[in-house]
Amino acid sequence: MRASRPRLGFWHELASTYSYLSAMRIEALAHAAGVDIVWKPFVLGPIFHAQGWSTSPFNIYPAKGRYMVREMQRLTAERGLPFKMPSPFPQNSLYAARLALIGHDEGWGPAFTRAVYTAQFAHGANISDKRVLGDILDGLGVDRPALLARIEPPELKERLRQRTEEAEELGIFGAPSFLARDELYWGDDRLEQAIAHLQNG
Amino acid sequence: MRASRPRLGFWHELASTYSYLSAMRIEALAHAAGVDIVWKPFVLGPIFHAQGWSTSPFNIYPAKGRYMVREMQRLTAERGLPFKMPSPFPQNSLYAARLALIGHDEGWGPAFTRAVYTAQFAHGANISDKRVLGDILDGLGVDRPALLARIEPPELKERLRQRTEEAEELGIFGAPSFLARDELYWGDDRLEQAIAHLQNG
Repeated sequence: MRASRPRLGFWHELASTYSYLSAMRIEALAHAAGVDIVWKPFVLGPIFHAQGWSTSPFNIYPAKGRYMVREMQRLTAERGLPFKMPSPFPQNSLYAARLALIGHDEGWGPAFTRAVYTAQFAHGANISDKRVLGDILDGLGVDRPALLARIEPPELKERLRQRTEEAEELGIFGAPSFLARDELYWGDDRLEQAIAHLQNG
Repeated sequence: MRASRPRLGFWHELASTYSYLSAMRIEALAHAAGVDIVWKPFVLGPIFHAQGWSTSPFNIYPAKGRYMVREMQRLTAERGLPFKMPSPFPQNSLYAARLALIGHDEGWGPAFTRAVYTAQFAHGANISDKRVLGDILDGLGVDRPALLARIEPPELKERLRQRTEEAEELGIFGAPSFLARDELYWGDDRLEQAIAHLQNG
């Protein structure tokens, strides 16, 4: 029997700039390394609230926010990715995260996730707008009206709530974070280290 | 006339774990790249206070603090460096920073800086203790009593205060930070990028 492939938990927030960076490269890196990705969309809002923040630390601490924008400009330029800060920032990512949960059940999650990041950070679109999300669903060839009708029900809200609790229990405090067996890695710049940890295990 | 060598501003806090990582490798990297280092010790306390923090964010946000310790263990192990968290953390680095200012004027600053980080993060010593600092000065073969007598006078306090104001004006909010011409890079993991920016300039 063939040994199972190592699995990398990819904890991402759909409104997070640095999660965008990872989402656009994680599949190529994981494929090259023989690693499977476990897509874990979650929302940072409740985790930030629990530590007394009412918005992103990039808004609360302006020097940090300015640095993040400049660094995103540098890193996206290096990687040949478009970049535009959406307004407002951060976007409300609840609908997008709930649709992503369905998408990962149904096989279109990774493409949906990349499309959400691209709409938001390449075109500055508002991802809390159901029309924006609907257009993304159309682009994937999935059933837009049926899916948009599914984003309010309590069971999906509850799944996302549990996912976010799970993130807190794992010690996650920012996004993206990567879980490689029991080791947690925070930040797009740690993606290679997380993969290397799985390969050396 | 030979073109002047590019200069990398190395903004470090003597009580900062990630600054320790950079201090132990920056000279080798800069030398290999043909870059000069401008040593810029400063203190983060006033910058943290200005954003409403009374201590390190690693203490205020426990998940972030636990992650930092785990990551320091991983990175120091990879790099063959010793690591021990000092108690209390963060240490009061005012005396050490003032001595470093003198040391950089007099040529023993880099060796002093490395010795302060090693005492603190390899041996867990308290760097606010004048005996610890005195032993470090002895090890460098400089005039311990004369130097320890110089760390209280107002002009040295004022220099450190100005240095910290300069950090704030540059948009620095954490340590280590690297200034490569007009570009700011934050974090030990950005050291290579900062050097590359100077080389490509």
